[in-house]
Amino acid sequence: MAPGEECSVLVHEAPCLAPPHNNISTVLLVIAMQAEALPLVEALKLSQDDTLVFPKSVPWIKYSGIHDGLHIHIVVPGKDAVLGVDNVGTVSGALVSYAAIQALQPDLLINAGTAGGFKAKGACVGDVFVATEVAYHDRRIPIPIFDKYGVGATKTIPTPKLVEALGLKLGKLSTGNSLDMSPQDEEVIKSNDATIKDMEGAAVAYVANLFSVPAILIKSVTDIIDGGRPTTEEFLENLSMAADALLKTGICVLKFLNG
Amino acid sequence: MAPGEECSVLVHEAPCLAPPHNNISTVLLVIAMQAEALPLVEALKLSQDDTLVFPKSVPWIKYSGIHDGLHIHIVVPGKDAVLGVDNVGTVSGALVSYAAIQALQPDLLINAGTAGGFKAKGACVGDVFVATEVAYHDRRIPIPIFDKYGVGATKTIPTPKLVEALGLKLGKLSTGNSLDMSPQDEEVIKSNDATIKDMEGAAVAYVANLFSVPAILIKSVTDIIDGGRPTTEEFLENLSMAADALLKTGICVLKFLNG
Repeated sequence: MAPGEECSVLVHEAPCLAPPHNNISTVLLVIAMQAEALPLVEALKLSQDDTLVFPKSVPWIKYSGIHDGLHIHIVVPGKDAVLGVDNVGTVSGALVSYAAIQALQPDLLINAGTAGGFKAKGACVGDVFVATEVAYHDRRIPIPIFDKYGVGATKTIPTPKLVEALGLKLGKLSTGNSLDMSPQDEEVIKSNDATIKDMEGAAVAYVANLFSVPAILIKSVTDIIDGGRPTTEEFLENLSMAADALLKTGICVLKFLNG
Repeated sequence: MAPGEECSVLVHEAPCLAPPHNNISTVLLVIAMQAEALPLVEALKLSQDDTLVFPKSVPWIKYSGIHDGLHIHIVVPGKDAVLGVDNVGTVSGALVSYAAIQALQPDLLINAGTAGGFKAKGACVGDVFVATEVAYHDRRIPIPIFDKYGVGATKTIPTPKLVEALGLKLGKLSTGNSLDMSPQDEEVIKSNDATIKDMEGAAVAYVANLFSVPAILIKSVTDIIDGGRPTTEEFLENLSMAADALLKTGICVLKFLNG
């Protein structure tokens, strides 16, 4: 679809093609919201077994199992102890990624989740994107060099075969801790040339990079940021559909990797 | 000093008084910038010995030693591998705090660093504050309950004797990943009733709280946010002086805790 073109609200039906042989045996999926993670946990018949991996006092949850010969671990940052909502955002995303990488030594990390998309860059609700680059849009540090550090633009590993096989879209991802978008955020997102915007991706990728773990960021679009509708309303309305798209894509990605 | 009153730019000369007896034997100081940490490392004659504590591939540094009977560990998130600047901000602050708490099991965590201050709330350059409460100002999630999670307002442990003995100021701290302040940041900072603004505090306190480690946040004011001067200019101009104030206060705090 050409940038700016209209599109209907459809769950992305990703085709599953046979994967090429590779050496991946342990895959860690980092997913911020339980509503995004649980359909995949159920479909893959994973079991919760975080007690041996995470410290007792943290709310993080790990689901694990073997699926088609791959050791699959899904970790989520769990719920806030007082408020009961998902621990979204960069801090919890980074922490749970760190602890899980240390404990599980995965061959590949997949950060799967929802994102806002820009229709001017070709995004539609229900699209599933693979991020070609990650950056932050809420770390403005106007001191030379620190400004680049704040943005933290980092290219991800290219996955042309995966993207082609599953019919996914490619785009740059910009991460910030807010669901909404301030004018300052917008300015940096534009300068980051981002097609999609999330709340964890750059932080999860940062931690993966610290340990040289290849990371793939798969983002399902819940809302169109430049579409005129309030983000929150559109996000809540489409969360379940986006989680479904993520589920289908997740299973196809794992099938692709299997081998 | 009454809120709004003018004050001269002076390094805070904190008096050191004898501390009451307590059961603290291991103190972890988390400091974001090496320029803030090194004077204290030198004054306390600490040695760098991070190899056994942190994974090989992370840039985090630990300095340790025994000072007046207290086991002191200072950790810094180190430098960005590509850009060479300090790994400031909430993600690195949280990660290094997590790894250090896990490895060192401290009795007390002190997050010492610089901050911007609001003169309308009584802050002057060179003041050293102890935070009575921490919150975020760049995690806007306009969904009920998620909005409160985003702000994450948390009271710190009261330290009336320490504050009185060292003549420190008290104020609420608001944390965000930007050095500057957007109108949206300002709105949340005001709603957080914050006197000081930093880039790590709430995230470090969050991790300490996860492990029920008491945390004290000590912040030395480098710049007056509502003072009319550009933050970056004032920050760079006063960083060394604020680090000096932090050094003196840090040594006094440790003397106070010793016992």
